[in-house]
Amino acid sequence: MVVTDTLNSGVHFPEQTAACDVGWKALAVNLSDLAAMGATPAWCTLALSLPQPDDVWLDACIDGFLALAAQHDIALVGGDTTRGPLSLTVTACGFVAAGTALHRDAAKVGDDIWVSGTLGDAALALREALQGRSCSDELRWRLDRPTPRCALGQSLAGIAHACIDISDGVLQDLGHVCDASGVGAEVRLDALPASDALVAHVADAGRWRLQSAGDDYELCFTADPMKRDALAVLSDSLDVRLTRIGSIVGGGGMRAFDADGIEVHLQSSGYEHFG
Amino acid sequence: MVVTDTLNSGVHFPEQTAACDVGWKALAVNLSDLAAMGATPAWCTLALSLPQPDDVWLDACIDGFLALAAQHDIALVGGDTTRGPLSLTVTACGFVAAGTALHRDAAKVGDDIWVSGTLGDAALALREALQGRSCSDELRWRLDRPTPRCALGQSLAGIAHACIDISDGVLQDLGHVCDASGVGAEVRLDALPASDALVAHVADAGRWRLQSAGDDYELCFTADPMKRDALAVLSDSLDVRLTRIGSIVGGGGMRAFDADGIEVHLQSSGYEHFG
Repeated sequence: MVVTDTLNSGVHFPEQTAACDVGWKALAVNLSDLAAMGATPAWCTLALSLPQPDDVWLDACIDGFLALAAQHDIALVGGDTTRGPLSLTVTACGFVAAGTALHRDAAKVGDDIWVSGTLGDAALALREALQGRSCSDELRWRLDRPTPRCALGQSLAGIAHACIDISDGVLQDLGHVCDASGVGAEVRLDALPASDALVAHVADAGRWRLQSAGDDYELCFTADPMKRDALAVLSDSLDVRLTRIGSIVGGGGMRAFDADGIEVHLQSSGYEHFG
Repeated sequence: MVVTDTLNSGVHFPEQTAACDVGWKALAVNLSDLAAMGATPAWCTLALSLPQPDDVWLDACIDGFLALAAQHDIALVGGDTTRGPLSLTVTACGFVAAGTALHRDAAKVGDDIWVSGTLGDAALALREALQGRSCSDELRWRLDRPTPRCALGQSLAGIAHACIDISDGVLQDLGHVCDASGVGAEVRLDALPASDALVAHVADAGRWRLQSAGDDYELCFTADPMKRDALAVLSDSLDVRLTRIGSIVGGGGMRAFDADGIEVHLQSSGYEHFG
């Protein structure tokens, strides 16, 4: 399994992001892609463009990168540093036992839809940063230092059907699963898991918009309802919150409902980049 | 063997470069790195940032990329397209039999220094382009469509000692070989191989500056003088010009001499990016 993802300054992270956080995040988004396939990280490369030579910035960036790499035992085997607008491209390779890789095209009608962790913290932190307001370290950490769900992804083989990482927003990425699998989805917006910090900041009604705005790097997966017990055990053993947010249905498209069961019109949401 | 290299618009190629040539070159510079290690290309990924969605540009770029990929039988196995200043990062993986990879730290005192092809065409084409002058298709091709020396690199195992690709300029890259090998080099600037087109454009005395300005993607390697016959056979069989330009000597540093044996002071030269 090979993945590659680019972070551009001002597009994928605020320009004032600390160098060590930029390095961390560049690897994290790629590990998250490997996690969504159930792959065990093996090695990676880093190509970095900087407007001008800056050893202090570069050292801090690499420190952040290697701190996360050490957590996941992934080797940095090559790199390139060159002049250009601030940008980082990581290519990461992981391994998965033959036939056990998770794919986005494997959702089945009747599956539960699950997400890991909580959604919306990163989007809230980004909103506050863009508006020049400070927010708690906890929230800011969720934006700058996402935690790729590698252990969860690797454990979902044999349990989950389809899996994807929520980098572009849960509704948009779940839409990719539906399109690839030829199925539809019904989601309860009030079921989207929220941190205490998010609940304290944002009123109930509009919370789902932040929670589907992207940059969360959690996993969204589908599984047969028979797997609920196995997932409860997994959640406990990995200490990762798993939340059921809806069901896979026949046909296509995505429908969302509020706490009263009233359908909510889904306008365009998700992270603002293309591709 | 894994390599990764980034091309940024306006830094590594003129902004008006055709999309198909940009795609070609992004792969070529990485294949050239694999060639310098004697590796056989296997697979690659492409991460591409574009200022705005542009399917016509993207299709042409991919066409150029795949045209070169087909020549070298390398598979494009993954990619990412995102928003940002125009930039392409390719990561390429190649294979080499255990113990036969070429390295830059293996030059030995007494070795001949060789380069493939001709040097300076790309730098001349770039100079003409930056000054708004047109040049022949042949010269422009050398800038926009470099030919990675994969077959040569793979054939140098067992013949060459050290090897590097000349992307930053022959003198700068040969300097990397000397530093890594703990040796020095003496180079005859008048021996640097020039195309007929370059000779027609540029007078003898200053030609070496263009010829060491970089972007040539030829190989520079060192080999025992006993290998001259083997290299002559290889040059014939691959139809690649090979030119002896100097010798590896003890100590360190690089010295250059003109046609009369007078030492030439080497000012900073090489391609204007860092890393």
